[in-house]
Amino acid sequence: MATPTRIGLCGLAVMGQNLALNIAEKGFPISVYNRTTSKVDETVERAKVEGNLPVFGFHDPEAFVQSIQKPRVIIILVKAGSPVDQTIKTLSAYMEKGDCIIDGGNEWYENTERREKAMNEKGLLYLGMGVSGGEEGARHGPSLMPGGSFEAFKNIEDILLKVAAQVPDSGPCVTYIGKGGSGNFVKMIHNGIEYGDMQLISEAYDVLKSVGKLSNEELQQVFSEWNKGELLSFLIEITADIFGIKDDKGDGHLVDKVLDKTGMKGTGKWTVQQAADLSIAAPTIAASLDSRFLSGLKEERIEAAKVFKSSGVSDILTDQNVDKKKLVDDVRQALYASKICSYAQGMNLIRAKSIEKGWGLKLGELARIWKGGCIIRAIFLDRIKKAYDRNAELANLLVDPEFAKEIVERQSAWRRVVCLAINSGISTPGMSSSLAYFDTYRRERLPANLVQAQRDYFGAHTYERIDVPGSFHTEWFKIAKQSKI
Amino acid sequence: MATPTRIGLCGLAVMGQNLALNIAEKGFPISVYNRTTSKVDETVERAKVEGNLPVFGFHDPEAFVQSIQKPRVIIILVKAGSPVDQTIKTLSAYMEKGDCIIDGGNEWYENTERREKAMNEKGLLYLGMGVSGGEEGARHGPSLMPGGSFEAFKNIEDILLKVAAQVPDSGPCVTYIGKGGSGNFVKMIHNGIEYGDMQLISEAYDVLKSVGKLSNEELQQVFSEWNKGELLSFLIEITADIFGIKDDKGDGHLVDKVLDKTGMKGTGKWTVQQAADLSIAAPTIAASLDSRFLSGLKEERIEAAKVFKSSGVSDILTDQNVDKKKLVDDVRQALYASKICSYAQGMNLIRAKSIEKGWGLKLGELARIWKGGCIIRAIFLDRIKKAYDRNAELANLLVDPEFAKEIVERQSAWRRVVCLAINSGISTPGMSSSLAYFDTYRRERLPANLVQAQRDYFGAHTYERIDVPGSFHTEWFKIAKQSKI
Repeated sequence: MATPTRIGLCGLAVMGQNLALNIAEKGFPISVYNRTTSKVDETVERAKVEGNLPVFGFHDPEAFVQSIQKPRVIIILVKAGSPVDQTIKTLSAYMEKGDCIIDGGNEWYENTERREKAMNEKGLLYLGMGVSGGEEGARHGPSLMPGGSFEAFKNIEDILLKVAAQVPDSGPCVTYIGKGGSGNFVKMIHNGIEYGDMQLISEAYDVLKSVGKLSNEELQQVFSEWNKGELLSFLIEITADIFGIKDDKGDGHLVDKVLDKTGMKGTGKWTVQQAADLSIAAPTIAASLDSRFLSGLKEERIEAAKVFKSSGVSDILTDQNVDKKKLVDDVRQALYASKICSYAQGMNLIRAKSIEKGWGLKLGELARIWKGGCIIRAIFLDRIKKAYDRNAELANLLVDPEFAKEIVERQSAWRRVVCLAINSGISTPGMSSSLAYFDTYRRERLPANLVQAQRDYFGAHTYERIDVPGSFHTEWFKIAKQSKI
Repeated sequence: MATPTRIGLCGLAVMGQNLALNIAEKGFPISVYNRTTSKVDETVERAKVEGNLPVFGFHDPEAFVQSIQKPRVIIILVKAGSPVDQTIKTLSAYMEKGDCIIDGGNEWYENTERREKAMNEKGLLYLGMGVSGGEEGARHGPSLMPGGSFEAFKNIEDILLKVAAQVPDSGPCVTYIGKGGSGNFVKMIHNGIEYGDMQLISEAYDVLKSVGKLSNEELQQVFSEWNKGELLSFLIEITADIFGIKDDKGDGHLVDKVLDKTGMKGTGKWTVQQAADLSIAAPTIAASLDSRFLSGLKEERIEAAKVFKSSGVSDILTDQNVDKKKLVDDVRQALYASKICSYAQGMNLIRAKSIEKGWGLKLGELARIWKGGCIIRAIFLDRIKKAYDRNAELANLLVDPEFAKEIVERQSAWRRVVCLAINSGISTPGMSSSLAYFDTYRRERLPANLVQAQRDYFGAHTYERIDVPGSFHTEWFKIAKQSKI
C-alpha cells in the first residue's frame, strides 16, 4: 500500500470491528489488525459490504504498524489486564518516538498510569479512553472519554470529534478528560451510574409487576410513555422494547423466561471500592452491586424462599388493591428522585478523585459528553450539565435549586413507593438507599453523636462538642459506675 | 536480671500498657519496651501500684530482647503500617531462630502475610493477632484472634488462655484462628460488624428520640431494659450508660452536646472493599460506613437542611401521635432483626475469604470467642454459635430455623419501624438495607431478569433461561425495530 492510513486499530471483536468501521465511514482510512487473523478478513469484508469503507487489513503486526502515517496512533480494544500489556509489547516493538497507543477498554485507571509511564520512557505517548455505547454505539457514535497525553489527544482530536455521537445543541460526545488514568476513571464511574440506573429500573418494574400486577403489555406502554418525559433515556427506551418481545421458544414474553441472575464485569465493583477509599457515600450504586451479588445466589434464594414460605411468609405479603394509574405515577417519581441521588453520588466520586489526583475534571463537561452515545444517555444529563453551569462548585446535585425543587415535588410519591414495597415484602434497595441518602444528607443533626460517644466510651477516640471548639474525652465508664453505686 | 521473663511487649500506649499488666497479673513475668522511654517507666510504675505485678522495663531494645526466655515471644502494639515494619526491624536484629513476633494491631491482613514470609526467611515466627475490647478489655480480658504460625501459637497458648476474657460455660475468648493473615482478617470483619451494631443502635436512638420524643432518661431506661433480654450486649449496656451522663460543662446531658461527626479508622472501609472483592452483599455494614462519611459532612448538611427547609421540608415531616410503649417494642424488634442480617453478612464474608485462602475457619468457634472481651460481645453470639453447631455448612444465618423463626416473629414490627422513619423524613439506612437484604435473599424470583435482558440488549452479554439450559443471545434491537415498522 502506497499511501499510509490515518490510524490503526488492533483487537477486532465486535466492538473493535464496529469502531473501525465507524472511523472509516467518517473518512479516515484505517489499518486493522488482530492476532486471530480471520477477524481481520471478517472486518475487511464487512467494510466492503457496509459501503466500501477504507479499511485495510493486516495479518502481521509489523506491516500493520508500518502502514500508519506518523506520528502513528493505534487504538487497541482487547480484554483489560494482561492482554493489554501483551498487545502493547507486540505493537510498540515497531513504533517510533511520538507514536501513540490508545487503550479503549474498561481498564483499571492505575494500569493506564503505569503503562503511560512505561511508554513515555520509550518516547511513546499513551491514552486510556473510555468508550461507551455498546456495539451499536461503537458503530454509529459512542461517547468517548480519552485521558492521558494531551499531545496524543490533539493528534486525533479531528477523528474523535467525528466518530463520537453527535448531540444537537451540545456537540460531539467527546472531550479531553484529563491527565493520567482520568479517562478510565470517569468511564468506571459512568458504569457505576449505569449499574444504579439499571437497578432502579428493575425495582420500578418489580413494584409495577409484583404489586401493581401490570402485564408486559402494560409495562411496555408505561415505559414508552415514560420515555417521552423527564425519564427519556436509552435505558428506559430499551426497557420498553424488552417488554414487547415475545419468546421465540414458547408462549409469552421473552423477559419472563430470562433467568434472574445478573452477570457483571469489574467496573461496578471498582466504583464501590473507590467510594470507600475516597470516603464518599455511594449507597445507590452499592445497592445495585449487592443486588447483582444476591441475584447470583439463585439456588440459595430458592431454599430461603422455601424456609420462609413454610413460616407463612409469602413472596408478596399484601395483596392490596392498588390504583394502577396512581401507582405508575408514583413509581415514575420515585425512580426519578432516586436517579438524582445516584448521579449525585457518581459526580461526587469523580470530584473527590479529581481533587486527590489533581486532574481538574469538569463535571458539567462530563455530563455533556454523556448526553449521547453512551448507555446512560438521557435528557436528564442536560439538567446535570446546567446545574454545574449554574455553579461549578456545587457541593451536591441535591442542593442545586432545580433538582431540590424536583425532589421536593416527588418526595411524597417516593416515600409511598418505598413503603408500599416494604409492606408488600419486596425489596427496593436502590430506591430505599437513595431515599436514606437524601434524608441523611439534608439533616442538620444526625444520631452520629451517639456513635461518637460510644467510640469515646470504649476506645477513648475523643469527640468534639457542638458548643465549644476542641477535642474532648470523658471517662464515661467511671462516671457511669459511680452513679450506679 | 538473672531469671528471664516469659514474654515481652513493645509499644506502651494505653492498650499496650494494659495488656502487659493483664499478662503480668496472670502470673507471667513480662519485659516491656517502648521507643519513648518515659512510657516504660510509666508502665513499671503502674505495675507497682496495681499490685506489684512482675513487669520489667527496658530502655534499650537489645537488653529488652535478651531478657526474654527462649524461644522468645514479643507482642508488639504499635500503629499499623510502617511503624510495625520499623519495630520488627529493630527487634528482629536481636532475635534468634524460633523466636516469634506477634502483631496485636489492626493490621491489613496482607501486610501480616508479607511479614510472616520475611520473618520465616530469617527463621523467625510471626502471628497477626486481633485484639478486641478496647482499653478495658486489654486490661481485664480481651477477645484474642491469633493467626499465622501454629507453632508460635502453641508456644504461648497457656498465656493467651489466661489473659483472654473468660466466659462461663464457653471458656476463654481465644482460639487459633488459622494460617497467614486470618487473625487480622477476622478482627477486621469483627470491626465491620461493630460498625453495623453501632449504626443500628444509633438509628434506634434516632427513631425513639426524634419520632417517639423519648427523653434521655427514658432512653436510658429503655436501653437498660433491652440489656436484660435478647439484645443483652456490651454496646447496649454502654448506650444506656451514655444516656445517664450529665454534661459537666453545662446543663443537660452530655450526649446532646457531642458533635454528630463520627470518626473512623481503616477496618470498616476494608470490610466493605473486601465484600465487593468477594462478591458478598454486606449492605448493613456498607450503610454504617456511608453514614459515617455523611456524618462527616456537617457543614454541607447544615446548608442542605437550609435548602430543603426553605422548600417546606422539615427535619421531621410528620408529628404523629405515637404510642411510646408500642414504638419501643417495635424498635427493639427491628433492631434485633436487622442485627441478624448484619451478622449474616459478616459471617458470610469470613466464609468466602476462608474458602478463597484455604484457611478452614470455623464460624461457630469465632462466634464463641466473641462472646466475651470484645466490643460486639453479646448473648446473641451464643445463638450464632448454636446455629453453626446445628449446621456448620449453613448457607446464611437467616435460614437457620431458630433465626428464621425470630425474624418471622419480628418482621411486622421491623417493617413498621422502617416505614415510620421514612414517613417521618428521617433515615434508617442500616435497618432498611437489612430489611432489603432479607427481602432479596428470601425471594425466589428477583427482577434481575430485566437487568440481564438489558445487558444482552446493549452489550450482547448473553443470558440464561429458566426453562432450558445454556447461554442465549437475542437480537432485541432488531426484533424491536421490526415490530415498530
